[in-house]
Amino acid sequence: MLVSALLTSLGINFGLCVLFFTLYSILRKQPFYYDVYVPRLLVEGTSKRRSRFNLERLIPSPGWVRKAWKLSEEELLSLSGLDAVVYMRIITFSLKVFLVAGIIGIFVILPVNCTGDQLEDIDFSDFSNNSLDVFTISNISSGSKRLWVHFSAVYVVTIFIWYLLYYEYKYISSKRIAYFYSSKPQPHQFTVVVRSIPVSVRSSISDSIETFFKEYHPSTYLSHTVVHRTNKLRGLIEIPAAFVSFKTRYGAATAFHLQQSINPTHWVTEQAPEPHDVYWPFFTSTFFRRWISKLVVIVACILLTILFLLPVIFVQGLTNLSQLEVWLPFLESILTITFVSEVVTGYLPSLILQLFLKAVPPIMELLSSIQGYVSHSDIEKSACNKVLWFTIWNIFFATVFSGSVLYQLSLILDPKNIPARLAVAVPAQASFFIAYVVTSGWTSTSSELFRLIPLIGSLITKPCKSTDDELVVPTIPFHRDIPRLSFFGLLGITYFFLAPLILPFLLVYFCLAYIIYRNQFINVYEPKFETAGKFWPIVHNSMIFSLVLMHCIAVGIFTLKKVSLASTLIFPLPILTLLFNEYCRKRFRPIFIAYSAESLIKKDREDQNDATMDEFFHKLVTAYQDPALMPIQFSTNTDSLHSPLIYSDEV
Amino acid sequence: MLVSALLTSLGINFGLCVLFFTLYSILRKQPFYYDVYVPRLLVEGTSKRRSRFNLERLIPSPGWVRKAWKLSEEELLSLSGLDAVVYMRIITFSLKVFLVAGIIGIFVILPVNCTGDQLEDIDFSDFSNNSLDVFTISNISSGSKRLWVHFSAVYVVTIFIWYLLYYEYKYISSKRIAYFYSSKPQPHQFTVVVRSIPVSVRSSISDSIETFFKEYHPSTYLSHTVVHRTNKLRGLIEIPAAFVSFKTRYGAATAFHLQQSINPTHWVTEQAPEPHDVYWPFFTSTFFRRWISKLVVIVACILLTILFLLPVIFVQGLTNLSQLEVWLPFLESILTITFVSEVVTGYLPSLILQLFLKAVPPIMELLSSIQGYVSHSDIEKSACNKVLWFTIWNIFFATVFSGSVLYQLSLILDPKNIPARLAVAVPAQASFFIAYVVTSGWTSTSSELFRLIPLIGSLITKPCKSTDDELVVPTIPFHRDIPRLSFFGLLGITYFFLAPLILPFLLVYFCLAYIIYRNQFINVYEPKFETAGKFWPIVHNSMIFSLVLMHCIAVGIFTLKKVSLASTLIFPLPILTLLFNEYCRKRFRPIFIAYSAESLIKKDREDQNDATMDEFFHKLVTAYQDPALMPIQFSTNTDSLHSPLIYSDEV
Repeated sequence: MLVSALLTSLGINFGLCVLFFTLYSILRKQPFYYDVYVPRLLVEGTSKRRSRFNLERLIPSPGWVRKAWKLSEEELLSLSGLDAVVYMRIITFSLKVFLVAGIIGIFVILPVNCTGDQLEDIDFSDFSNNSLDVFTISNISSGSKRLWVHFSAVYVVTIFIWYLLYYEYKYISSKRIAYFYSSKPQPHQFTVVVRSIPVSVRSSISDSIETFFKEYHPSTYLSHTVVHRTNKLRGLIEIPAAFVSFKTRYGAATAFHLQQSINPTHWVTEQAPEPHDVYWPFFTSTFFRRWISKLVVIVACILLTILFLLPVIFVQGLTNLSQLEVWLPFLESILTITFVSEVVTGYLPSLILQLFLKAVPPIMELLSSIQGYVSHSDIEKSACNKVLWFTIWNIFFATVFSGSVLYQLSLILDPKNIPARLAVAVPAQASFFIAYVVTSGWTSTSSELFRLIPLIGSLITKPCKSTDDELVVPTIPFHRDIPRLSFFGLLGITYFFLAPLILPFLLVYFCLAYIIYRNQFINVYEPKFETAGKFWPIVHNSMIFSLVLMHCIAVGIFTLKKVSLASTLIFPLPILTLLFNEYCRKRFRPIFIAYSAESLIKKDREDQNDATMDEFFHKLVTAYQDPALMPIQFSTNTDSLHSPLIYSDEV
Repeated sequence: MLVSALLTSLGINFGLCVLFFTLYSILRKQPFYYDVYVPRLLVEGTSKRRSRFNLERLIPSPGWVRKAWKLSEEELLSLSGLDAVVYMRIITFSLKVFLVAGIIGIFVILPVNCTGDQLEDIDFSDFSNNSLDVFTISNISSGSKRLWVHFSAVYVVTIFIWYLLYYEYKYISSKRIAYFYSSKPQPHQFTVVVRSIPVSVRSSISDSIETFFKEYHPSTYLSHTVVHRTNKLRGLIEIPAAFVSFKTRYGAATAFHLQQSINPTHWVTEQAPEPHDVYWPFFTSTFFRRWISKLVVIVACILLTILFLLPVIFVQGLTNLSQLEVWLPFLESILTITFVSEVVTGYLPSLILQLFLKAVPPIMELLSSIQGYVSHSDIEKSACNKVLWFTIWNIFFATVFSGSVLYQLSLILDPKNIPARLAVAVPAQASFFIAYVVTSGWTSTSSELFRLIPLIGSLITKPCKSTDDELVVPTIPFHRDIPRLSFFGLLGITYFFLAPLILPFLLVYFCLAYIIYRNQFINVYEPKFETAGKFWPIVHNSMIFSLVLMHCIAVGIFTLKKVSLASTLIFPLPILTLLFNEYCRKRFRPIFIAYSAESLIKKDREDQNDATMDEFFHKLVTAYQDPALMPIQFSTNTDSLHSPLIYSDEV
């Protein structure tokens, strides 16, 4: 790809961003669009539909940027919960990483690459006609001593990322514990889900539960709610699952951690989700059905991965103009026009990819929802993981190795050649990924601000809606946005020493994300559940993977460039990274699974002298209300929450 | 290999067995050898050293066989504990499997194989000159309808093994629970090991422990014993680990299951072993040292596996006479003698293999002991697993694929070709493994009875020993014997439809083992610890692996023999086997890890009215006595238990 193609792509996207920002700055002030741009404020009543017209409304103003910038972490925490704080910390974490990597990349590695002598010298008279490759490591000749600069950069950045990862895991762990300590008594802290309750002919499920828990948890058992579900054929049915509440958090934790019955498949307990986070269809499916579903989901994921290669191959063809002319000869005349060819190679490929990618998060959420999770937050977490690995595999590896599943499989089956093949293939795709950051990153973030799809949706449905219809405040689709942030992190980490030119574009992306998402948390999104930071370990794992991948590429590159001492000296890095990860798993992971006896007992003791606890326990008894037993109106509302596509309001 | 070579091997081993049995029947009656053959009875005082000589002592008598045969499961349980019962059930399980497989194999598959037309017809006039291959599946021509007999046999035997595995897992689970219910209060049921106790400058470790557990387990905490170890440099040291005892089993279980501290790396709890089962050196090594040890052990296992291929390759050469003649041309004249060549091909290879194999269990136990386990039983279990997989890899796969590590690795890296390669290689080694069963199985079992090595050891050391020296009763080395039984199970399962001739020899082996081990449990071995059946899951896993391996071979064979429909129809079997295994893991595995709340509370309640509990609690306080603080004499005795080689009394 030539510099000019990149500049074209940059121009188009910069234009789009400016357009979206301007339009947003105007439209957000129009009462007609309040439901799109400030639904949260509208529902909370802090924003009233202004009817008086004034000229100021038509002039774009950047006031919202200042407001978003000034928001403190405490305000964000009280506004949108710990998950939003963790989300913003993913962005600040990436900003820190790429600021340091960026300084090293632009001021040290880039000059070294540019003054290399492997490729043609940079033609400063016709700058835009230079190949982007002269800015990459490809421009350094084999055996050159300059490669030790790259080697040092790999070490410095790796150590810096270790430090940041450790610091961040520690910080979020402490936030999680602090959040628990400062939380009011909540039903899910005192409750466990019990499944596979043995059905006996002599007594009802409710009686069995009471007998069992009064027998084995006499001092802490409080109450229970048997789950009922409606069935089209048989009406209301008698399901052997229940929410069992305890008088203390420690009591609930004990019931959850210990195997209850002699038969481990009976009286299976797990932590209860928040009442509004319960995914009720979970209870309808039997054990066997959930098992089959899991198999189906695995097969579906594999199929999706294979089918997705088709658009990727097509996109690959576009970046390679000459091949496209062979495939579609009638395009030859059009493609000779410079601008067209620049759009085709610089912009179109990543746009097409991006459109296909849009469909992945909702599909993955659908798959996760049939897999058998008891809560929406678990579904979201599982979908987040699926989307992340799908993206890494199908965007990174499929693009890098341009091709067929069989070829990719042959790579897995030949592990010792992976570094060498990565070393050849990864730098070759540097320009594609730089364009990808600009297209997919910049545009998706600013269209997140402009809320293009909800805007269109609102314009279409508004005429049909009555004013009485309740406004639904959207939730941020973590399973779409966290994998995206992580994937850009992976691109940055793997490319920073190969093609440091990617770093300024990434920094712009994360800066945009920083402002825009803070603004969206204030105006648009409302938290639907609180996992108290359980998304962080996913990001941590993806960073560890990125580091190890980067080390593999470095080993390959240094071997290819015949600096074998450097490639040998890189070897300790992936091993130390994995050991570091192992340490973090031991040190922090358990905090994200369950609270410790120490915290639970401390919190329980605090409550002992609290007069409001009686009222809380009174409410707790009916907290896990069964939607099937609620009045129709309410039931319908709750049912809409069960749709797995609820969060994907913006496709 | 010819029938005659097998007959030679059979003759030699049969002779050895008869010799060992006869010698045993005589020597066991000589008071001089009581310490070798009935050490257990001697120590228990049920057998007195008879001095009066009579002629009967010199005549071999089979009375011990009747005694061993008549021993009931309840007697064995009270005599040697649940582990011995489980050990005998592994043998009876194998007997049941190979009885059914044997009937099908000998009466259905063998005639089908013999009447095949792929190889030369059996020459009945000179029977011993036939190749053993005519009895195997190799004799069936491609595309033959007869292969459906093998196909059906695979299905029938697989389903029968599923049923038996399920039944056995269920039976042993119930035995384990019954054992727990019937057990007297034991110190380890009420105790947890606490490690990584944060050290503070203001208070001693003992005070910290008391403060912590009185704070968070006020109603159940009983007492604690801080672990002290002697150090050559610094004398007695203050280690941050302790045994903490509770007033109830449920209290101890709660402390073990829940993460105690906010920091998951502090106050780490695990189940306490029985007091005499504690592996004290565990406490001396630091967390970091244990981590490094683990890495070292992994590397050592890999090295051992690679080095072990040298004898295997040598043995391979022996079974292939012509190759041996190329290697060592001067042997040509000797090898032309029929008997010599028969010994070399039929007997020598597996004898050499067996000798090398003898060294593996002690080495693996040594490796396990430095890996960081708190008890001897855990070390034994880990060593058992290591020896099992080492045997499967280095005997089965190395023999089958006759060769280099690289070749084996290339197989792993090319999974879709595994069935095809197995199909070619496995039947080719049938005759070797038949000989292996006879040599390694028969001879090792009868030498187990004869106790060859302890006998020699006793003869050498007896003149130097004073009569005051206490007699040490040996323990059965589970980590040597369970992998052997499992490996013969694997051979039987994988070969039953390929070369059913292996089955009668296996049946004889298991019958011998049945009588001999019962006899040894009565007379020789004394249990040193009680895992209450925790070895069974290892055997279960190895059986599942054997089944899946057999299915892979079947797929390969049917593809090779061009009955592709059969190979397609085999496919559901491995999948169903893995699902079956998954179900067993859910249904039974948790029972082997910890007891359920239900059992613990029931048992605790029984004790409430027991008057002897006060005395028990009084003893419990000092149960975990520190060997470093004991009088020298006792300390030495206990130290000898720590030697990882203690069980390998018979090399």
